[in-house]
Amino acid sequence: MSSTFGTLFKVSTFGESHGKAVGAIVDGCPANFSLCESDIQPQLSRRRPGQSDMTTPRDEADQVTILSGVENGRTLGTPIGLMVNNRDQRPGDYGEMSNVPRPSHADFTYQMKYGNRASSGGGRSSARETIGRVAAGAIAEKILSERYGTRITAWVSSVGDIDARDLAGEGVAREQVDANIIRCPDEAAARRMIELVAATRDRKDSVGGVLTCVAENIPVGLGEPIFDKFEAKLAQAMLSIPATKGFEIGSGFAGARMFGSSHNDPFLRRPDGSLGTATNNSGGVQGGITNGEPVVFRVAFKPPATIGLAQESATFAGEPAVLEAKGRHDPCVVPRAVPIVETMTALVLLDFVLRQAYRNA
Amino acid sequence: MSSTFGTLFKVSTFGESHGKAVGAIVDGCPANFSLCESDIQPQLSRRRPGQSDMTTPRDEADQVTILSGVENGRTLGTPIGLMVNNRDQRPGDYGEMSNVPRPSHADFTYQMKYGNRASSGGGRSSARETIGRVAAGAIAEKILSERYGTRITAWVSSVGDIDARDLAGEGVAREQVDANIIRCPDEAAARRMIELVAATRDRKDSVGGVLTCVAENIPVGLGEPIFDKFEAKLAQAMLSIPATKGFEIGSGFAGARMFGSSHNDPFLRRPDGSLGTATNNSGGVQGGITNGEPVVFRVAFKPPATIGLAQESATFAGEPAVLEAKGRHDPCVVPRAVPIVETMTALVLLDFVLRQAYRNA
Amino acid sequence: MSSTFGTLFKVSTFGESHGKAVGAIVDGCPANFSLCESDIQPQLSRRRPGQSDMTTPRDEADQVTILSGVENGRTLGTPIGLMVNNRDQRPGDYGEMSNVPRPSHADFTYQMKYGNRASSGGGRSSARETIGRVAAGAIAEKILSERYGTRITAWVSSVGDIDARDLAGEGVAREQVDANIIRCPDEAAARRMIELVAATRDRKDSVGGVLTCVAENIPVGLGEPIFDKFEAKLAQAMLSIPATKGFEIGSGFAGARMFGSSHNDPFLRRPDGSLGTATNNSGGVQGGITNGEPVVFRVAFKPPATIGLAQESATFAGEPAVLEAKGRHDPCVVPRAVPIVETMTALVLLDFVLRQAYRNA
Amino acid sequence: MSSTFGTLFKVSTFGESHGKAVGAIVDGCPANFSLCESDIQPQLSRRRPGQSDMTTPRDEADQVTILSGVENGRTLGTPIGLMVNNRDQRPGDYGEMSNVPRPSHADFTYQMKYGNRASSGGGRSSARETIGRVAAGAIAEKILSERYGTRITAWVSSVGDIDARDLAGEGVAREQVDANIIRCPDEAAARRMIELVAATRDRKDSVGGVLTCVAENIPVGLGEPIFDKFEAKLAQAMLSIPATKGFEIGSGFAGARMFGSSHNDPFLRRPDGSLGTATNNSGGVQGGITNGEPVVFRVAFKPPATIGLAQESATFAGEPAVLEAKGRHDPCVVPRAVPIVETMTALVLLDFVLRQAYRNA
Repeated sequence: MSSTFGTLFKVSTFGESHGKAVGAIVDGCPANFSLCESDIQPQLSRRRPGQSDMTTPRDEADQVTILSGVENGRTLGTPIGLMVNNRDQRPGDYGEMSNVPRPSHADFTYQMKYGNRASSGGGRSSARETIGRVAAGAIAEKILSERYGTRITAWVSSVGDIDARDLAGEGVAREQVDANIIRCPDEAAARRMIELVAATRDRKDSVGGVLTCVAENIPVGLGEPIFDKFEAKLAQAMLSIPATKGFEIGSGFAGARMFGSSHNDPFLRRPDGSLGTATNNSGGVQGGITNGEPVVFRVAFKPPATIGLAQESATFAGEPAVLEAKGRHDPCVVPRAVPIVETMTALVLLDFVLRQAYRNA
Repeated sequence: MSSTFGTLFKVSTFGESHGKAVGAIVDGCPANFSLCESDIQPQLSRRRPGQSDMTTPRDEADQVTILSGVENGRTLGTPIGLMVNNRDQRPGDYGEMSNVPRPSHADFTYQMKYGNRASSGGGRSSARETIGRVAAGAIAEKILSERYGTRITAWVSSVGDIDARDLAGEGVAREQVDANIIRCPDEAAARRMIELVAATRDRKDSVGGVLTCVAENIPVGLGEPIFDKFEAKLAQAMLSIPATKGFEIGSGFAGARMFGSSHNDPFLRRPDGSLGTATNNSGGVQGGITNGEPVVFRVAFKPPATIGLAQESATFAGEPAVLEAKGRHDPCVVPRAVPIVETMTALVLLDFVLRQAYRNA
Repeated sequence: MSSTFGTLFKVSTFGESHGKAVGAIVDGCPANFSLCESDIQPQLSRRRPGQSDMTTPRDEADQVTILSGVENGRTLGTPIGLMVNNRDQRPGDYGEMSNVPRPSHADFTYQMKYGNRASSGGGRSSARETIGRVAAGAIAEKILSERYGTRITAWVSSVGDIDARDLAGEGVAREQVDANIIRCPDEAAARRMIELVAATRDRKDSVGGVLTCVAENIPVGLGEPIFDKFEAKLAQAMLSIPATKGFEIGSGFAGARMFGSSHNDPFLRRPDGSLGTATNNSGGVQGGITNGEPVVFRVAFKPPATIGLAQESATFAGEPAVLEAKGRHDPCVVPRAVPIVETMTALVLLDFVLRQAYRNA
Repeated sequence: MSSTFGTLFKVSTFGESHGKAVGAIVDGCPANFSLCESDIQPQLSRRRPGQSDMTTPRDEADQVTILSGVENGRTLGTPIGLMVNNRDQRPGDYGEMSNVPRPSHADFTYQMKYGNRASSGGGRSSARETIGRVAAGAIAEKILSERYGTRITAWVSSVGDIDARDLAGEGVAREQVDANIIRCPDEAAARRMIELVAATRDRKDSVGGVLTCVAENIPVGLGEPIFDKFEAKLAQAMLSIPATKGFEIGSGFAGARMFGSSHNDPFLRRPDGSLGTATNNSGGVQGGITNGEPVVFRVAFKPPATIGLAQESATFAGEPAVLEAKGRHDPCVVPRAVPIVETMTALVLLDFVLRQAYRNA
């Protein structure tokens, strides 16, 4: 297990899907910063299942409690304990799975790594694990917003074969993202995505998708080459989110098909006198360090592994078996992944801000 | 700066493009393991520029010296100091660049982050930085090979718009990769790639490409959820390599377009009695932990930023300027990236092997 | 803040004296290990104030709850969340202190470091902070005991000028330690210590003391030179406990007065065939690595800073002020420090056990 | 092995006593700081053996080379590679020791931990290991001196039973320390110490001693509670130095015999308006954080384990054996430990300065 992330703004999380609680400790948070539970709750609520019939109907209030580190509405600079109780414990739903590891799920690998696994739900591999980091990241978001006016906005840019048009340069706001249940600000694409997810759900299947995320108003100079380059830690953060299979920044895989003469981002003077770039194929990073342009990246999510459709597979002992997941499961996780991607981005950003501080002192 | 990688097999690197030396310290290497300089040299030589007219003609012998940690051909378990002298110091070549940051290069961001930058070459952002990690990774490769028969093989799967056919399941060997100068085992595609790079070089431009890497015979159970999931640290490792813009594992971005019923990898009993999967959309990882199937991933490299073609850009002060890089520069870095991707993979793998050891004890 | 300790068995703690709760996350705990709250509670109860009139009468039940990481009485290998609610919140007692930093307390330095401090009690600098680590360390103790028969026993070896006789070689058991309220197994000395503490309390003063700790049945080979030598991390662990001013191992400061010919510990064959030493001036470590002999060390605790006696001091602004602490305060912390020293020792030991595992694999 | 120290100013060292070289990488050093080899050399030369007949006559020039991270006399902010070649390789001297582990030396524990050990000298456990950290610490010293006027001065305060008078409050300068070969500024005591060491050497024995160190002009607010309290990391740093057995800060073990009313350090207004303390039993730290008063601590060194006197011991196999070390060995290491203690203190201080920077930003 490695449930701690960050060098100076350090987040440690805990919690399985069906234990007593999930949560996190945020160590290294700057002091004297205004904070209360209602600053954290919105992203938790956006992450919560049961927001629409796009997602699993498991109803979880997910109310966060601050256990420490805050007094009279101000951070003390000491560790902030964050806890969300688990209310919905129905191990029975998952009973059948015990002898048959779910294909492409973590059942088999957890069993092999730890010599056991949580008897119900996904245990630590469940999406419920992300609550701790979303709560911690919501704190980071608030600090970044107040200090630099940083805006981090993710949205669903594809579901299955349906692509939204490219909105990366259009200053998408969270309100636009939340305007529909699939969280795609291209309304035409959103409608088709919603139909696709509904049809997928009806035939007890699941479908993948891609998120695009843009972070604006971030300081120049973030990132710690060579191993902790900005995009390297961002990639780690994104690939630590359940169900992710890919990450690209700026031009990404498409950039690998380009020539330098068209890929290079020429410098120019911005109206405020600072140096900017005319294009942003770099996605806001050069040499592993932010250059002040928006950070633009995409994250690929595979279709959820747990599906109601019958699947031919095998037991742990290798005997052929057919698996049909009971209960209701998310046919598509990408709408709920939006706040996870945003808050993980905030964790990466703020940690780099603090790591850079001694150079600017 | 963060020039240390790994938790138990810890690699710290040093060195600029035009200083006295580059190198690394490997801390935590298992003891009593046979090691000499000729075990390390081959990957350094494959990384070296000047191997063909595909790559920059800068001639560097890149002979590694082991400074410590090995006695009588055996590792002591103490830190292994590794050093490669810099022989080719021609700062003059780069003099012109001082006032004009190269577009999409690290000149601007290093200046903003550190308040200075190396006056010649790319300093720490130069590809020469990778020597330390390639040397360290070559040690990891050898240990993995001896213990588990691990084979890590990367190759060029696309250059510009030219794609090789999918070779991920064909057990490609390094000899096949090195059979041509572009390091693509699909000979037909290789010829076209070589032509493309030659044409690109002739018009003083550069071009990007993609590497595919397959790691076989690796233990089940590697990876430390949640933040150090196997693919998360692998992504960090890959995005820490200069010029990378994307990473995907298994089905990757294509997987985001699939349905769960076709994406899931059904389990089956392997001939040796262990549990394997019929397909490998997971790319060898489930829940952030290796499942024993080959680890398959791809890394996108942008076209090199330094080109001879005239580029309109701006000075640090924001004045318009035209930049024409003097000297000879790599028109395409992907062939030389092959050993870098392989050795970084080995560093990720071996560190996870050591981190898992206490669970198997 | 740096509230995380350990490389593989990683403990992160949270909690102020008067917030909602204190606790810890234990990450990296081996799986399939029998654990329930009653395994942890005894050391928490020994740490608790109000056990005798030697210590502060603040009554705190300090009941621990396991929030995650354990299912059906077995560890999952996932993070173990541990929480103890704060029940006794009486900020009023401490109101007077707000303008006058308590001499030799953390009021001034916290204010200077963080630009604030908890308005009541000691906040994070309170001894109540230690609950999280004691709970975590109790888990480590249990694992060490089951695997190696490790016994870790600390006791009070001096209070003020009263010294117990040297008991380091006598196999002291915890029952003997707990046989009196001062936790000194030398009954004659214990009586005098208890009288001294009572007299000190009656005149509203405080007094310091020394703990001796012996850890037996520990594996050979623990410790990670050069910076994480066994005694180096043990010293860090001990000096992280509130009110500590000194650490010595084996011969310690007395050893600095000796000659090599009498200080060296000659090797001899133990009855079981292994190599032991005839004396133990080394205190169980040589070259930063355990040699299998008992680890023996001492920790010095200063007298508690908060006393009822009037003290001439100054306000934050530098104005002269007289401070008289209200309420009841510990006149002597060393009896309650016993479980803290023991559990911190266990954290150091188990982390090194896990770090050594790959070498023994 | 754990050969890396520091969170932001990170030092990784390498090198055995008889390999090709020893050295270090300093990662995270602030940029644009004036640095050349002659800034580092003085402390290396003070550490060097053969400075007097007090110390081993092994003649080592110990000239440091900066391999990277500095250009035109300024730090780049990139890793600084530091190397000192080993010139004096005489494995023969130590040949006899191969079957008989030296009592109280690291021969036995290295063999047990790593399954091997360097065949000559102490390998990594040799005092020669300290060269890397002294070089790195000399850089930290220079930065602290230029930024804050920090002065770090250690001296020998006891050898065997001979104690110097208490000089901690007298502003001892390095010139005074170096005025005699035992490095004790109390000239009367120094003469007796020198005589004691000479007599000890003549009878082929060794003797221990204590160093006192004072660090003045350091910022308020350094230290990261709870596990990285200032004194906790300082204790770790000191106990990582070969041959150390104890550490105490401020009143130390003597403080454990005091009452709070006399131990507490009353606050008062300093002439510059800041808050200071009338006494300094705290040794410059309260609650794990520096308070601006001088940091005062002592480190106990045992007598060197390698002596020429015949010692009865045992072979690795447990057979009785008599050991008589050939060659010439240090009868007393404390004079040479002076620069090691000073530079390790600087490493602790500067790392905390950088970690605190984001709070002061």
